[in-house]
Amino acid sequence: MPYSVAVAGASGYAGGELLRLLAAHPDFEVRTVTAFQNAGQPLIALQPQLRSLAHLTLVETTPANLLGHDVVFLALPHGKSGAITAELPRETLVVDCGADHRLTDETAWARFYGGEFHGAWAYGLPELVHSDGTRQRDLLVGERRIAAPGCNVTAITLALAPAIRAGVVQSTDLVSVLAVAPSGAGKALKPHLLASELMGSASAYGVGGVHRHVPEIQQNLRVAGAAQVSISFTPVLVPMSRGILATSTATLEPGVSAGDVRAAYEAAYANEPFVHLLPEGEFPRTADTVGANTALIGLAVDSDADRLVVVSAIDNLAKGTAGAAVQSANIALGLPETAGLTVNGVAP
Amino acid sequence: MPYSVAVAGASGYAGGELLRLLAAHPDFEVRTVTAFQNAGQPLIALQPQLRSLAHLTLVETTPANLLGHDVVFLALPHGKSGAITAELPRETLVVDCGADHRLTDETAWARFYGGEFHGAWAYGLPELVHSDGTRQRDLLVGERRIAAPGCNVTAITLALAPAIRAGVVQSTDLVSVLAVAPSGAGKALKPHLLASELMGSASAYGVGGVHRHVPEIQQNLRVAGAAQVSISFTPVLVPMSRGILATSTATLEPGVSAGDVRAAYEAAYANEPFVHLLPEGEFPRTADTVGANTALIGLAVDSDADRLVVVSAIDNLAKGTAGAAVQSANIALGLPETAGLTVNGVAP
Amino acid sequence: MPYSVAVAGASGYAGGELLRLLAAHPDFEVRTVTAFQNAGQPLIALQPQLRSLAHLTLVETTPANLLGHDVVFLALPHGKSGAITAELPRETLVVDCGADHRLTDETAWARFYGGEFHGAWAYGLPELVHSDGTRQRDLLVGERRIAAPGCNVTAITLALAPAIRAGVVQSTDLVSVLAVAPSGAGKALKPHLLASELMGSASAYGVGGVHRHVPEIQQNLRVAGAAQVSISFTPVLVPMSRGILATSTATLEPGVSAGDVRAAYEAAYANEPFVHLLPEGEFPRTADTVGANTALIGLAVDSDADRLVVVSAIDNLAKGTAGAAVQSANIALGLPETAGLTVNGVAP
Amino acid sequence: MPYSVAVAGASGYAGGELLRLLAAHPDFEVRTVTAFQNAGQPLIALQPQLRSLAHLTLVETTPANLLGHDVVFLALPHGKSGAITAELPRETLVVDCGADHRLTDETAWARFYGGEFHGAWAYGLPELVHSDGTRQRDLLVGERRIAAPGCNVTAITLALAPAIRAGVVQSTDLVSVLAVAPSGAGKALKPHLLASELMGSASAYGVGGVHRHVPEIQQNLRVAGAAQVSISFTPVLVPMSRGILATSTATLEPGVSAGDVRAAYEAAYANEPFVHLLPEGEFPRTADTVGANTALIGLAVDSDADRLVVVSAIDNLAKGTAGAAVQSANIALGLPETAGLTVNGVAP
Repeated sequence: MPYSVAVAGASGYAGGELLRLLAAHPDFEVRTVTAFQNAGQPLIALQPQLRSLAHLTLVETTPANLLGHDVVFLALPHGKSGAITAELPRETLVVDCGADHRLTDETAWARFYGGEFHGAWAYGLPELVHSDGTRQRDLLVGERRIAAPGCNVTAITLALAPAIRAGVVQSTDLVSVLAVAPSGAGKALKPHLLASELMGSASAYGVGGVHRHVPEIQQNLRVAGAAQVSISFTPVLVPMSRGILATSTATLEPGVSAGDVRAAYEAAYANEPFVHLLPEGEFPRTADTVGANTALIGLAVDSDADRLVVVSAIDNLAKGTAGAAVQSANIALGLPETAGLTVNGVAP
Repeated sequence: MPYSVAVAGASGYAGGELLRLLAAHPDFEVRTVTAFQNAGQPLIALQPQLRSLAHLTLVETTPANLLGHDVVFLALPHGKSGAITAELPRETLVVDCGADHRLTDETAWARFYGGEFHGAWAYGLPELVHSDGTRQRDLLVGERRIAAPGCNVTAITLALAPAIRAGVVQSTDLVSVLAVAPSGAGKALKPHLLASELMGSASAYGVGGVHRHVPEIQQNLRVAGAAQVSISFTPVLVPMSRGILATSTATLEPGVSAGDVRAAYEAAYANEPFVHLLPEGEFPRTADTVGANTALIGLAVDSDADRLVVVSAIDNLAKGTAGAAVQSANIALGLPETAGLTVNGVAP
Repeated sequence: MPYSVAVAGASGYAGGELLRLLAAHPDFEVRTVTAFQNAGQPLIALQPQLRSLAHLTLVETTPANLLGHDVVFLALPHGKSGAITAELPRETLVVDCGADHRLTDETAWARFYGGEFHGAWAYGLPELVHSDGTRQRDLLVGERRIAAPGCNVTAITLALAPAIRAGVVQSTDLVSVLAVAPSGAGKALKPHLLASELMGSASAYGVGGVHRHVPEIQQNLRVAGAAQVSISFTPVLVPMSRGILATSTATLEPGVSAGDVRAAYEAAYANEPFVHLLPEGEFPRTADTVGANTALIGLAVDSDADRLVVVSAIDNLAKGTAGAAVQSANIALGLPETAGLTVNGVAP
Repeated sequence: MPYSVAVAGASGYAGGELLRLLAAHPDFEVRTVTAFQNAGQPLIALQPQLRSLAHLTLVETTPANLLGHDVVFLALPHGKSGAITAELPRETLVVDCGADHRLTDETAWARFYGGEFHGAWAYGLPELVHSDGTRQRDLLVGERRIAAPGCNVTAITLALAPAIRAGVVQSTDLVSVLAVAPSGAGKALKPHLLASELMGSASAYGVGGVHRHVPEIQQNLRVAGAAQVSISFTPVLVPMSRGILATSTATLEPGVSAGDVRAAYEAAYANEPFVHLLPEGEFPRTADTVGANTALIGLAVDSDADRLVVVSAIDNLAKGTAGAAVQSANIALGLPETAGLTVNGVAP
């Protein structure tokens, strides 16, 4: 019998992608979908792409409505999950796609988010290799509280962690610039997210170290072995529906060869089902990850600039959010890690 | 009486934009348009947007067809302008939009382009301030051989030169990542430039220091005062018709404040008609530069990462190519520098 | 001395395009820009593409603020211009880009718009040829109250009026389907106008004869000579910043040849500066009209289906709105009709 | 044990989508992939989105290489499948995504395609209801030669056939205008398919009844009961990766009500798994069908214009090509019709 599932925040983009993945998952059955303002509406009115779930109606996002399910996925605005989760039984698997339970450092939380600090949960990036060789996936087995990573964080962590763990680059002068789709910003009605503003245009935001994903990246790279992490992080909105293409660079440690670098990534990802290292001289494009749980990674060593350049591509809503949540839930429940997920993108 | 003008390479994107600007210029009259394969066709068949020039027919790109004009603009593939220019009179103003005459260093030419080296011409980036305070515009007055800069080069040079000249950043650890429109790659029929491949996708190319614009950036920043320039440069193709959004970062020199940085840029650009420094906390978008000769620049100091972040936006075909060529021609001929050019973008 | 100009509704897309055109116009000087909610803000904050007008500040949209100018352009929501215009002097040229003064039929107004009916003004589509051969431009000379046409209306009227006037098609079974850019819907914060919703998607709206532009099209085609007009009209939102591509079809009258049809359009547009008939077998694309006041028209006779197919392309904000307003103002004031306007599009 | 499958023409867009669907299909196993020029290359080099098939290498498209499979899908240029199929055993299920076996009328073939006529196969549009009530799906059971429909044809047939079969509209004055993605035109290197040409632009092609899909539409609507079919058909290229939005209109028969129309469509599609009729007043968008085998249909009755307007949306590569092929193969083989297919789109 499939696990019964509730999705809170089912009217947004992350919620919609969760539902798309769950609808195709052999072991899950979506019973309940919740929303704030849109409660009472048929799900199909908000997620017209989800024809197979047209029978569902959005109910209000309350703890009561989330009780009685084996698994609860939260796709709520930051700051909303703490109070709700407190009322869910310990044995319910709760996967939070929001930021509330990602950061271990209360000071970082206070500086970048503010409001009550609810503490960190098990972190839903199975491919993160700790400095001691532990894979993060091992910490998710049997877990009942999981925080899915931020989408930009995933793109950058997967790009840089292997090099840092292997000691082939310095961690104190990292630079990441990301081409990102506006769906990462959700359905909020903000002028700069209008189609007329975004189509045909590229623009940076959160420039200068103020983006909320910075402390989460630092946290991950410390897990991978960095004593100290300094990163210049700039996301650039570009006109595409989905996708993150992160260009991350780091200063090479002296004497490191291109072969050393590649070996570090092969060690990290050779057996990963969802992280694929591209051959020498090839670099990914986001289109190839659309709808897939795949992260694609290309490497270049720039001897003149003395820098490693890593280009990583993910679908911000899939591997960047909902896919990571489902993958982590699979692990937590003892299901095959790849259940209900694909590595094949919808391209062109 | 207007200057008579010929445009060689009139069937491509750079040629088309040159013609659009020249058609609106009060002091120029386009008499001749040339092409290689498309010779014999009406211009309007290749540039259907140029209704006011529908009377022109493309003739073959030969020195003979370019003789007898006051001004010749070359928008040819790299390596094609040397032989042609050799046969044009010294008094003809020749502005080359290709790379043939940009680099002063024959070794750099050989490494990144190859083929015969034709030597550098006066460099068509009027706003470049030399380490001794000379503005590049002063070197263009009366010139008859001008090399217009590469589009990515313009975006990065304008972003970084003031900081380097003022000594507020180091020049040995620069990182630039650019969101670029595919029109910069021209009309060549290459699979990765197909609409189905590019729409909805972002992808990096020329990764790892191999892009031809690297030595030109280094050359410019040395002019601005850098003893040595090391730059990691990665262009990312994004689905928009025009535009470059460059995110450039540099390590701050010790003790430098945000005010010091801003002062350096104000000194450089306060009186520039085409380079506009945005207020604190604002960053440009490429849409605002479409069709305009404008470069927009936003600054942020990231104290945590100890880096200056400069975001610059240009239209790759306008200020990035054809606009710079016209602006430089204006200066060379003693016309108002802004003649036939606008600072207002076509947005949305 | 240039005419002094005020633009009411300067923070929207139509207002922005008006200002872009006016800034480049040799005979106009923008003195005043007004807005509702955005009053008090610098214009550049709302129209960051208009660098040459960065000195202007938005003031409130009131009759008092619009007094004392030679020309007032109104780019206001429907229903807002009547009360304001009533307080402006008769000798002020007022050009309304809204719908308030387009319809002559109060019943049609009541059905499609509702609210107070303010009566029709001189209609700003200079190229409309009346059944008696009068050109609409002649009715604009010396006028002081002009209503600029709806954008979709312009695309369809220019496509169908010549055939109707010449009697080569029936007017009772017209079908027009338009690919339209979302900028026509303005900056309103509506969910379906978000970039994530629109990019990569096409969708119809106003289906089934309910769109407000239907009665205006009918009115124009009656002016061109139709006794009765029946039109099926469907706009389709597509992911581009600007542009309308209208495909309009009409049943051919018996015995009409392709040559008869072409002759009708040549008679109508041979001398028009802004309407260009493409050669046999060629059809326009919207990119070629971006930023231009051009309408491009292609014709095909489908003998199997017994229908004329007319494909017309305009920039919805230029010839579709602001360009038509400036063109009409030029005529009204006795300026060259093409002053400040271009036929050359910004492409690619 | 899964059926062994070969895909011929695996390097194109239709081939890629076939492979994406087949890779997720529980009953098929892709053993062989073929190509013409790209033979010898790894599949992943041509279809970088298909990570799960990275072990496959393209072999040459020859009959020999296609022998020995249970199912062969052909995604070849028009005119290429006849000779190949002639050499495949009768018991092999062959599904042709090309046009070679769609038309029953040799005259129509000669006029619109030319070259040798190979005769029609069973037509792979299971939802087509014949005038006598037969559903096309019933004719596919046990079949071994199936022609998948043209993508535009599917969008229009599904939109118009129910009304024609029910006799609520006339079939002699149909008009369809489609917003179509360029992926329908394949990977051919043609100038007008370059991203710089297509992004930000809409353009019509095949105008005036010359498009090859016209006779196939006529054929289908005759099957649905039309004595004679006259249709004006215009496809409009718009800047999106996938999707067709067809706006189809037909003159209502006298006395027909909106309820009559809706009843006709409900009768046709109430039990269809992949064709969904939207509620009154709702119209589809292509984004909701991306990657899905869904066709979404919205209806409006325009009493003023006396026309039915049907808006239909499909993914041109999925339900429009590869999805229809897999769906038909499912039926032919006695598998569940929905096996390996989804109704949920990848949106945003």
